[in-house]
Amino acid sequence: MKTIKENVEIILPENGLEQKFKLAGQENRKLIIKLGFDPTAPDLHLGHAVVLKKLKTFQDLGHRIVIVIGNFTARIGDPTGKNKSRPPLSREAIMLNAQTYVNQLSKILDINRCEITYNAEWLEKLNLSDTILLLSKITVAQIMHRTDFSKRFQQNLPIAMHELIYPVLQGLDSVKIQADIEMGGTDQLFNCTMGRQLQEAEGFPPQVVMCMPLLKGLDGKEKMSKSLNNIIGLTDEPNEIFGKMMSVPDEVIPEYLELVTDFDQTTRQHWMEKLNNGENPMILKKIIAGNVIRQYHTEQDAINAAQYFAQQFQSRSFQEKNFTVVSIAELIRDHDQLNLLDLCAFLRKDESRSALKRLIDSGGVAVNDHKMTDSYGLLKISGPVRIRMGKRGYFEVTPF
Amino acid sequence: MKTIKENVEIILPENGLEQKFKLAGQENRKLIIKLGFDPTAPDLHLGHAVVLKKLKTFQDLGHRIVIVIGNFTARIGDPTGKNKSRPPLSREAIMLNAQTYVNQLSKILDINRCEITYNAEWLEKLNLSDTILLLSKITVAQIMHRTDFSKRFQQNLPIAMHELIYPVLQGLDSVKIQADIEMGGTDQLFNCTMGRQLQEAEGFPPQVVMCMPLLKGLDGKEKMSKSLNNIIGLTDEPNEIFGKMMSVPDEVIPEYLELVTDFDQTTRQHWMEKLNNGENPMILKKIIAGNVIRQYHTEQDAINAAQYFAQQFQSRSFQEKNFTVVSIAELIRDHDQLNLLDLCAFLRKDESRSALKRLIDSGGVAVNDHKMTDSYGLLKISGPVRIRMGKRGYFEVTPF
Repeated sequence: MKTIKENVEIILPENGLEQKFKLAGQENRKLIIKLGFDPTAPDLHLGHAVVLKKLKTFQDLGHRIVIVIGNFTARIGDPTGKNKSRPPLSREAIMLNAQTYVNQLSKILDINRCEITYNAEWLEKLNLSDTILLLSKITVAQIMHRTDFSKRFQQNLPIAMHELIYPVLQGLDSVKIQADIEMGGTDQLFNCTMGRQLQEAEGFPPQVVMCMPLLKGLDGKEKMSKSLNNIIGLTDEPNEIFGKMMSVPDEVIPEYLELVTDFDQTTRQHWMEKLNNGENPMILKKIIAGNVIRQYHTEQDAINAAQYFAQQFQSRSFQEKNFTVVSIAELIRDHDQLNLLDLCAFLRKDESRSALKRLIDSGGVAVNDHKMTDSYGLLKISGPVRIRMGKRGYFEVTPF
Repeated sequence: MKTIKENVEIILPENGLEQKFKLAGQENRKLIIKLGFDPTAPDLHLGHAVVLKKLKTFQDLGHRIVIVIGNFTARIGDPTGKNKSRPPLSREAIMLNAQTYVNQLSKILDINRCEITYNAEWLEKLNLSDTILLLSKITVAQIMHRTDFSKRFQQNLPIAMHELIYPVLQGLDSVKIQADIEMGGTDQLFNCTMGRQLQEAEGFPPQVVMCMPLLKGLDGKEKMSKSLNNIIGLTDEPNEIFGKMMSVPDEVIPEYLELVTDFDQTTRQHWMEKLNNGENPMILKKIIAGNVIRQYHTEQDAINAAQYFAQQFQSRSFQEKNFTVVSIAELIRDHDQLNLLDLCAFLRKDESRSALKRLIDSGGVAVNDHKMTDSYGLLKISGPVRIRMGKRGYFEVTPF
């Protein structure tokens, strides 16, 4: 439960998760976790990943992930044409977006164990009587409490009548798939509570709403959003990710460390303490960048990107050799102050520390092509570092 | 145009009627006048008659009266059950109500020349996409401007979402029947303007809205309404109408004279002047009561009701004879001070005034069984009065 609740910003109702788990246990079934998806914007970014990684936690526990693709409303869009982010889409465009979306989901979730549903399946069948019955279960005040509606209403900005309907339809999705939990960013809190109300009105137990914090974008101010052009996309190239990550303002480092890396808690704490103790923010950003690339590409991609960045922006060159890549994230976590002997011992677990000390003393170890003879000399490793140990030991160590 | 505009409280837009008539003239067609009817309340009363009589004026000019029976929304009613005046009705109940309504309409309109439509015909066919498209043409602010919605919203009283839809559906009715003019009481102003907006959104010329004043009920305070139990129904028995009319507060006499009688303008003015000059209000009420009964029943019914009222409440008895009933409304109108000779001359147009004067002088004329010998004695006739002239002249004169 601690892992599940980690980083979650809102759980509604507060003790709802515990009750759902208890119920699932009693009924000997898995929970249904809903994620709604608007097929107008298929490009996923690190902001989405915050939610998806939480879904992955549920999936790893064996629960059912049900993705609801809003193909019905996407087809209609905003008929007034005023809401540019909701143009009516053709069936083909929607299916293409949905496929792109599903492909990107597979970067985080086991997509073969996700259930993909399309809400036109039930919304297409609603006639006017059904719609009126549905709407009768919600009051105008409940809908108008949605922050952006009440703001626009107070400011006399037009709200077209059909806009009030969409959140209710999203709520109906929860009824249809019998969601136990709906996941989303905090901006989805309101829409998710519609599901609760309609489920209750239909006599079903209401879903628990779990909202993840909204990740700040590269500008460090607004939430990460494609329309604000401040995203790191899950399909961005490694070099692009690295460069973008190096550009974020220092203030968001703690948030990114927490929400975008997949370091365990102890490692995150370690780096937070380092940062608080005056560590160079550039080092933290490199570590986060490398970790993100490792998640969505490979460890080798992360190293290459770090090298590329260094070449491009730090004018350093590396010797061409055949290095074995080793992540020393755990080592760094466990050693507040890391010396050369510790590192060598980690890389060559088959050798004794005394043998390794002799190797260092004799000048057989080089770091980034510089000979180092002090076994207890402290190391600070913030990006890929190359270690040569004797004649055959070529390692590239990374902190991510 | 003067007759059409008489007593109308609101015409929207101000010069709209003139334009519609001009247009109809140019296109050589008749106007379509819409009246919507909610089949939850089939009992028509004098308040409805105010609107229906205006429709009759249009009908007499040859225009098309289209009655829209809201059988679709009546079937759904208020699914929340909170609005008691909107229970969901069965198809049978709705058709029965509609038939009752149409029967009552025929008391005022030539029902064979009215076109009766049922809005389920088009509303039943709307699916969710159609509904969303329809609603996109109206803003929330437009709907919330309806007085009772904005009041309830400000007072935090619940408004169910589907309630916002009903006015829009009523507006769609106007689109479907291509109404030129929609008639209603002033309480229908808002709903009628929905029709204008939707017609414009669909590219049709918007209808003109004509609102008649709301007649005050028998209490003289609230508008006449069945739920307030303050109505005179079009199908009330003559004695009931007479008794109810005598019970209204004096303040509403001018309003009733104007809106419920079918006296011409000169006659109404005559009685208004009388009233302003200190005439006994009871007399005015008797005249209005008799006129109403004459409209919805027969002149004989009006006389009988007046007699019945007098017997019951004024303990006067009348002699049983075979009297010819004659309305002297015009005579009263034309004579500010009416004397016996005038009356006799009106009743016996075949006789000369001098012959009639001799008859009076000789004691040959009795009024309500009292011999009267003064030809120039002034008469005040506020209810049925019996005149005996000679041996064969038996008249019952009425002022309505």
